[in-house]
Amino acid sequence: MQLKMSKKIMKPDFQGEFTASILAAAASPEIISFAGGLPNPVSFPIREMEAATQKVLTEKGAMALQYSSTQGYPALRAWIARRYETMGVYGVEADDIIVTNGSQQALEMIGAAMVDPGDEILVEDPTYLVALQSFHLFDPTVLPVTINADGIDCDKLEQTIKAHPDAKFIYVIPNFQNPTGLTYSRAVRERAAAILKASNLLVLEDNPYSELRFSGEGGNSFGAYLGEQCCMFGTFSKIVSPGMRIGWICCRNKELRAKLLNYKSTADLHTNIFCQLVLAQYLEDNDLDQHIEKTKRLYKQKAEHMMACMRKYLPEGVTFTPTEGGMFLWATLPEGITAVELYRAALKKGVAICPGDPFYEYARNVRTFRINYSNSTDEAIETGIRILGETCRELMASSQD
Amino acid sequence: MQLKMSKKIMKPDFQGEFTASILAAAASPEIISFAGGLPNPVSFPIREMEAATQKVLTEKGAMALQYSSTQGYPALRAWIARRYETMGVYGVEADDIIVTNGSQQALEMIGAAMVDPGDEILVEDPTYLVALQSFHLFDPTVLPVTINADGIDCDKLEQTIKAHPDAKFIYVIPNFQNPTGLTYSRAVRERAAAILKASNLLVLEDNPYSELRFSGEGGNSFGAYLGEQCCMFGTFSKIVSPGMRIGWICCRNKELRAKLLNYKSTADLHTNIFCQLVLAQYLEDNDLDQHIEKTKRLYKQKAEHMMACMRKYLPEGVTFTPTEGGMFLWATLPEGITAVELYRAALKKGVAICPGDPFYEYARNVRTFRINYSNSTDEAIETGIRILGETCRELMASSQD
Repeated sequence: MQLKMSKKIMKPDFQGEFTASILAAAASPEIISFAGGLPNPVSFPIREMEAATQKVLTEKGAMALQYSSTQGYPALRAWIARRYETMGVYGVEADDIIVTNGSQQALEMIGAAMVDPGDEILVEDPTYLVALQSFHLFDPTVLPVTINADGIDCDKLEQTIKAHPDAKFIYVIPNFQNPTGLTYSRAVRERAAAILKASNLLVLEDNPYSELRFSGEGGNSFGAYLGEQCCMFGTFSKIVSPGMRIGWICCRNKELRAKLLNYKSTADLHTNIFCQLVLAQYLEDNDLDQHIEKTKRLYKQKAEHMMACMRKYLPEGVTFTPTEGGMFLWATLPEGITAVELYRAALKKGVAICPGDPFYEYARNVRTFRINYSNSTDEAIETGIRILGETCRELMASSQD
Repeated sequence: MQLKMSKKIMKPDFQGEFTASILAAAASPEIISFAGGLPNPVSFPIREMEAATQKVLTEKGAMALQYSSTQGYPALRAWIARRYETMGVYGVEADDIIVTNGSQQALEMIGAAMVDPGDEILVEDPTYLVALQSFHLFDPTVLPVTINADGIDCDKLEQTIKAHPDAKFIYVIPNFQNPTGLTYSRAVRERAAAILKASNLLVLEDNPYSELRFSGEGGNSFGAYLGEQCCMFGTFSKIVSPGMRIGWICCRNKELRAKLLNYKSTADLHTNIFCQLVLAQYLEDNDLDQHIEKTKRLYKQKAEHMMACMRKYLPEGVTFTPTEGGMFLWATLPEGITAVELYRAALKKGVAICPGDPFYEYARNVRTFRINYSNSTDEAIETGIRILGETCRELMASSQD
């Protein structure tokens, strides 16, 4: 047999290959890895999950093991719908929610529902690399819009929309943006919302990190400004457990929601109901906010420690954006050194970072990189950043030769 | 905003719409439904799952809740690999297995990896309706090959391959085929294997039901004849629990496997690891074969009872294929009545069946229908078949007017 795979699957996948090679290199136990984005397992509510599981199997055992509906467990969807009030979005109903196999599946579903080959889509520049990967499955023309310290560049957003009136959607992460960690200011949120409201774009708001704000103030979801023009993605991965793969789309547009449901029904029928029931039981019997408080205290301490180490060990010329939440810091090297050079040199010394390249649709050999603080010990953070500092110095010295 | 969805998502979906409407109509608690394909919840190992979950959360709690690998939990993959020896396939390794979100996800993954718009694919005629739905996502030209009482029609298979040398794959269900319940005879298996071996087709063998054989003899998997030319799909849905959504692809072709892994990594990162660990623990601590024996005894009794009722209540002219396992019976109406007519008339009397139409790529207004026996009480089976018999008689009488 001569295997004849699809043209689609044979396309190069810069994001996928780049990050797979970094994560593989970082997987060795001798490496201090700041490359990934894992929650700290200390934050997992293991005992509470044990109690919830026992209750579910005793009271709803057959339901937990049987086939279930594509849309997801109603009590879990009702909980999610209510949660939107904390983000300034009122009137969301359980019926607006589709439970997905992690919010990552939501990206693929929306790509399938919206994008034909060549269709234009807008993203922040840089943006979440898996979103790029996922949208690439559908062959779009990607139009990146710069993100500034206070959020998306509204002038560029306006220009891009004007120049591309048929673009299908914009994908944004207004809170602790991945990779930059930036949060849109209130002024930018309001201006961007007004620009988007006047446009024909569907707005996809991804929001895995807003619950992890440990200082400063966030802002309302675009769903509060834009109603059903805005689809909101969410996930329990960063606040309860990523291993359960439970995310969601909040889609208040009925026509789109019906198509997303058809698509998911064909793609994998439904998200595992066992974990949906366990999670719903956990949420009923525990105070999630209290749990999140503990996680935030942990991450605040980690973030502050990492920032202190960066101030101490990184040479002048290397800058970074201080963070108020989430799981990442975003740093920029001085001219003359690329993040890939730093990645390679630091890896030889046992430290892994994630160079910025895969977060950009077009830019390559960039000077930005992302580092994760949520899942390292304090010692590993200090050692790792010290080594990064040394490596930067060496590269800076040799670039000036 | 004017919503502009993709052309792909707006295509008609005969299979999806047809079955959604049937399942919705059958969902009412007053309806006796033979339309779906649910395992009997009596067969679920609820207490054993409780013990397994407790063990997993005590011993591997952080692992169960953390992110995991796209390919799946190694111990579970090793179990699946060994299981292939019972199907005559030796030498399968854990590395050949990708754990999927139900075997339904495997259909979509393979469609993405193999099919560009217009590519030809072969299927049995009729075939599993969700496979058609799933492949349709990728716009293939579907070439159906008749299935006879002893399996796929080998002459037609040969002709189709000869006339379409560039076809990408063939999708087959050699054991308790869905919807017909037929099993390929040994002679057909061997001849079909020889024909396929000489072809350029990838062979996709789906096999959700072979473990549920309660009488007669099955045969080896095509994987035993065809090596890496054959991708084998499997699932725990019919033998342990569908709610956990744990299926797999056994793909021994490395190049294809790498692409399937990339695709799944983009689509939803990984299958929920919580349930993978619980299932692996369940399989380690329990004898699955003993559990399957109990399920088979239950289904044998249900099948025999339904067949006895059909012999008793259905009028002459309505025929059906006796079954030796699986979950379905397949019946054919006399000329002059369509299965959709029977479906509509019976539904008015409180009984739901699944007309054959969505199982065919092209044939419509067919006289075949599928009925499920696994998930009804004995009383419901007797009442339901009696009503079906009456309805058939009325339709036959009025068609002769």
